[in-house]
Amino acid sequence: MGNIGAIFATHPQRPPDTSLIEACVVACYDCSSVCVGCSDACLGEADVADLVRCIRTCLDCSDVCLAGGRVVSRLTEPSPMLVEAQLMACAEACRVCAAECERHMVKHEHCRVSAKACHVCEQACRALLHGASFA
Amino acid sequence: MGNIGAIFATHPQRPPDTSLIEACVVACYDCSSVCVGCSDACLGEADVADLVRCIRTCLDCSDVCLAGGRVVSRLTEPSPMLVEAQLMACAEACRVCAAECERHMVKHEHCRVSAKACHVCEQACRALLHGASFA
Amino acid sequence: MGNIGAIFATHPQRPPDTSLIEACVVACYDCSSVCVGCSDACLGEADVADLVRCIRTCLDCSDVCLAGGRVVSRLTEPSPMLVEAQLMACAEACRVCAAECERHMVKHEHCRVSAKACHVCEQACRALLHGASFA
Amino acid sequence: MGNIGAIFATHPQRPPDTSLIEACVVACYDCSSVCVGCSDACLGEADVADLVRCIRTCLDCSDVCLAGGRVVSRLTEPSPMLVEAQLMACAEACRVCAAECERHMVKHEHCRVSAKACHVCEQACRALLHGASFA
Repeated sequence: MGNIGAIFATHPQRPPDTSLIEACVVACYDCSSVCVGCSDACLGEADVADLVRCIRTCLDCSDVCLAGGRVVSRLTEPSPMLVEAQLMACAEACRVCAAECERHMVKHEHCRVSAKACHVCEQACRALLHGASFA
Repeated sequence: MGNIGAIFATHPQRPPDTSLIEACVVACYDCSSVCVGCSDACLGEADVADLVRCIRTCLDCSDVCLAGGRVVSRLTEPSPMLVEAQLMACAEACRVCAAECERHMVKHEHCRVSAKACHVCEQACRALLHGASFA
Repeated sequence: MGNIGAIFATHPQRPPDTSLIEACVVACYDCSSVCVGCSDACLGEADVADLVRCIRTCLDCSDVCLAGGRVVSRLTEPSPMLVEAQLMACAEACRVCAAECERHMVKHEHCRVSAKACHVCEQACRALLHGASFA
Repeated sequence: MGNIGAIFATHPQRPPDTSLIEACVVACYDCSSVCVGCSDACLGEADVADLVRCIRTCLDCSDVCLAGGRVVSRLTEPSPMLVEAQLMACAEACRVCAAECERHMVKHEHCRVSAKACHVCEQACRALLHGASFA
């Protein structure tokens, strides 16, 4: 169990099962950090002009996943419809970003890493959307 | 015209009319900053125990509106479905946060300020959702 | 008075004079939003390969100024040495970013806008560093 | 090696040794996420009124460490003095937050978790400050 899982385990307002929440939060922060990294790696490539859409999409995905990770990790007095709306935005950001990164992953390995992180995060968001009651 | 409007006016990829985008971005950043302020003011009140849901909702709204402001302000190679999903999350965050802040605004003036900023931001997000093509 | 000023005016823990704090917070959020805008405008330029350092510096400046704006706007139980350290990081980010943007402002007007926002923010951070007691 | 390490390993502008950078970035994101979690857990406690300074400090630490993690993880065209200034702010935020969380960790286990994450992050920031050239 990572540190955020240890926080959930001792949280006074935790729901009975936080496993989907923890997986989603971990994936959101991982995707957010990886997408900053991929945007910066793309920026450092000689063919940066071919990577403009990848950079922009990674920056969006990083910001949206960060908001998702923060909102989902708050267990005190959540608003289910707000959590759901941000999870849907996260899943969409990851879907779009993974598709763009995959277009470049044969040439740039860092795009393969970020595409994978986006897939994991999209799946974790959708699993929480379908499995959780948020109440 | 504020500084972000001046950026849009000189942006190489700007759409023909950026007025709804600018209004939305300005409202998102304003709401994000005001909600951090309101959460902190609530935290400093003697009746903080009655303001737990208000604090939590303001923190969510701040993070979601920040992501919204950043995503919407990027005009290069936008992904319409991602922009829409984040705008819907923003509008929902503002709706929830305004409703909670209004429960406390007779007692705490800072909640009145944040409720107003949330209303303005929700409307600006919905106006952009309904009026823009993002392409 | 803007909305964040209205929050400060009704904050239960406000210091006697919040004018330097308000100016700094407003400048930090403005600079943060403008630098996201300038990084994206640079990304959309035909000569993006010449603007790599400008894009990177704007992204840093945006993140650092956001942290500055959030930390400074919290008036409840502040830690003076933490506020000072983040203000110094903000001032440095703005100094570096303004210098880089100025190298491109003859060719790109958006770089002129962001250079100006960085200058204003650096000055507001330094004014607060020198004028405030944070206690 | 985590995902951000995999990004660094394939980054076109990576320095010869990224081990201190990777440790710092991982610690910054972990601390940022844990501090959001601890602030929310404190907010959900019956004795929230005794935890006001802990909540505020965790929120600051989360924002400052996020900026640190993002700035340090960008390897393209870094500005050494800016990286150093943000690392110093991060280390200070972690020092202050660990000290505050430790005051509550006998009563609240989540404060023990966040104190530990803050210590790890402070050390990782200081190790990078002392060991790296950023160029």
